[in-house]
Amino acid sequence: MKISDQHYRTIWRDAQSVCIIDQTRLPFAFAIARLQTHSQMCHAISSMQVRGAPLIGAAAAYGMVLGCQQQADDQTLLMVAEQLIATRPTAVNLAWAVQRMLQQLRAVAVAGRAQAAWALALAIADEDVAQNQAIGQHGLALIDPLATANPQRAVNILTHCNAGWLATVDGGTALAPVYAAHDAGLRVHVWVDETRPRNQGASLTAWELAQHGVPHTVITDNAGGHLMQHGQVDMVIVGADRVTSNGDVCNKIGTYLKALAAHDQQIPFYAAVPTPTIDWQLAHGTGIAIEMRDADEVAYMQGQDDQGQIQRLRVIPHESPALNPAFDVTPARLVTGLITERGIFQPQQLHTLEASL
Amino acid sequence: MKISDQHYRTIWRDAQSVCIIDQTRLPFAFAIARLQTHSQMCHAISSMQVRGAPLIGAAAAYGMVLGCQQQADDQTLLMVAEQLIATRPTAVNLAWAVQRMLQQLRAVAVAGRAQAAWALALAIADEDVAQNQAIGQHGLALIDPLATANPQRAVNILTHCNAGWLATVDGGTALAPVYAAHDAGLRVHVWVDETRPRNQGASLTAWELAQHGVPHTVITDNAGGHLMQHGQVDMVIVGADRVTSNGDVCNKIGTYLKALAAHDQQIPFYAAVPTPTIDWQLAHGTGIAIEMRDADEVAYMQGQDDQGQIQRLRVIPHESPALNPAFDVTPARLVTGLITERGIFQPQQLHTLEASL
Repeated sequence: MKISDQHYRTIWRDAQSVCIIDQTRLPFAFAIARLQTHSQMCHAISSMQVRGAPLIGAAAAYGMVLGCQQQADDQTLLMVAEQLIATRPTAVNLAWAVQRMLQQLRAVAVAGRAQAAWALALAIADEDVAQNQAIGQHGLALIDPLATANPQRAVNILTHCNAGWLATVDGGTALAPVYAAHDAGLRVHVWVDETRPRNQGASLTAWELAQHGVPHTVITDNAGGHLMQHGQVDMVIVGADRVTSNGDVCNKIGTYLKALAAHDQQIPFYAAVPTPTIDWQLAHGTGIAIEMRDADEVAYMQGQDDQGQIQRLRVIPHESPALNPAFDVTPARLVTGLITERGIFQPQQLHTLEASL
Repeated sequence: MKISDQHYRTIWRDAQSVCIIDQTRLPFAFAIARLQTHSQMCHAISSMQVRGAPLIGAAAAYGMVLGCQQQADDQTLLMVAEQLIATRPTAVNLAWAVQRMLQQLRAVAVAGRAQAAWALALAIADEDVAQNQAIGQHGLALIDPLATANPQRAVNILTHCNAGWLATVDGGTALAPVYAAHDAGLRVHVWVDETRPRNQGASLTAWELAQHGVPHTVITDNAGGHLMQHGQVDMVIVGADRVTSNGDVCNKIGTYLKALAAHDQQIPFYAAVPTPTIDWQLAHGTGIAIEMRDADEVAYMQGQDDQGQIQRLRVIPHESPALNPAFDVTPARLVTGLITERGIFQPQQLHTLEASL
């Protein structure tokens, strides 16, 4: 992705450090954070400076690298792995990336592990980029016939949270088809769900679509159903933090409500998921641990004041408690298809994908 | 309702003025505004210092009084009526109250109209209070068996937006059964939807429940479906801005999504509506004009800063547009029942209510 004409990934190596875009500062400040220890990476993940299932997979891989640089014996690596996995319980990519790093590093002599780790983490990041490009092309095939059938109007795609470039190393999952369609000259317009409490839609999805020049409109999380009732949504595409082998989709809280509305209005509902997001070990979404995050994320809202400073305001009474479940599970029966790097699969066809891996 | 042990209505006469609680300042400041002209009342309604279908009905009636005080001939009254009706297009109570005032005032000699108008507006306000008390008792009959069947746990009621005391002259519509149950010693707990963009749930519903001592928890608009999936919601009760004769419920944007989730999880979904909220002239919700409000309500968020001041912050990128439909329509097929002052009716039974009026 280009930001002011310069190409960026969301995470990259710089000498012996790892650089990330601090996503808690967007859309009002573009800040880069430099991480030198695995503890700093744990903090970056848990505080959501980096977030999005594919990106936290890559971030955890780089966290293993930073751990290796300090000390690379088996016991240390296991401890680092444990700390990284504990940062966020719901997304499966994180544990997948850490396990892959662990397994491959243990085959390397301790003295060579740090150097090997850099290469392994880069491979995970590169794979993510390639997967997202393929997801973009498969998703483009869904958008293209709609755009061609009615070139006078834009194809309206609703998305929830941020499953764009910023949720991945580059390219995005749910937004990959949008970027592919826009770059191919098709008319697309994105309805961007605000996505309370952390506003990843309003702050991240809107920002990256604006950077790329894709027409979009921010709406509250409440508005999508109404727009669907009035023929203003042609397709829903979301990302996922974990998909179980039956096709249940765990994604940002509120996704289930949009899937219900899409189903009620006979609008196709897709989740764009690279295969590392699929948890073949879990048969149903009910088995997924749903992260409960700090109630202050509901009680406060961050934004930019009239002086251009990033501030936060309390938005609920001081006497009132709040609850903050971060994800929900959309049952497979509401999912039209899963857009993977290996093609589009109906939930009940997922076993054919598993067999091909 | 009592605020710090003093009884308040949301709107009342004080000498030749009308006093209102300025709801745009809650929950962080309790401010009373004094209105002396119908233009000030128009502003109070359109800027949502007063809001909620029943309350803006009473407010419009008092707006007619303030108009009468300045000049009470037929032509002036018609002009005042027109201005009041134009403030908000969706709620039916507003037009209903204005028409009723007009009709009754035209039967009075011009010289006596101002005095008569005070009495007529008070009657509308008193009727609202009585209707809400009756709604509370009918709704209590729904909560009581659930509380009695399982006294160990609270009955969990989810509500959207504010249809409490603050949305009415006193007593509330959707919250009337909650207050009745709480006051009867039953264990109730309310899930309070934040209700973006104006946060009437987080700022008004949470505040008034806290004032009354009713256990409650604020959640994002995204969270209700997840809670329903996990058995944490026993019943949904919302208010309405307009109900059509087939039982379609027009209410705050996002209500449709909660109704879908309740239906999917077989949880009863009720709208609490005094009969003036029912538009017998409209056969279907598709005929209702949906107010589009200022996009800045989505782009900015109001709250309290660390110094205790009420401020607003921008929460979307400066480059991004926003859209702000204020209401949606929940089709009657998703509505378990309508709690009116005359009892509870399934949508398809509404004609029996109409016949009894």
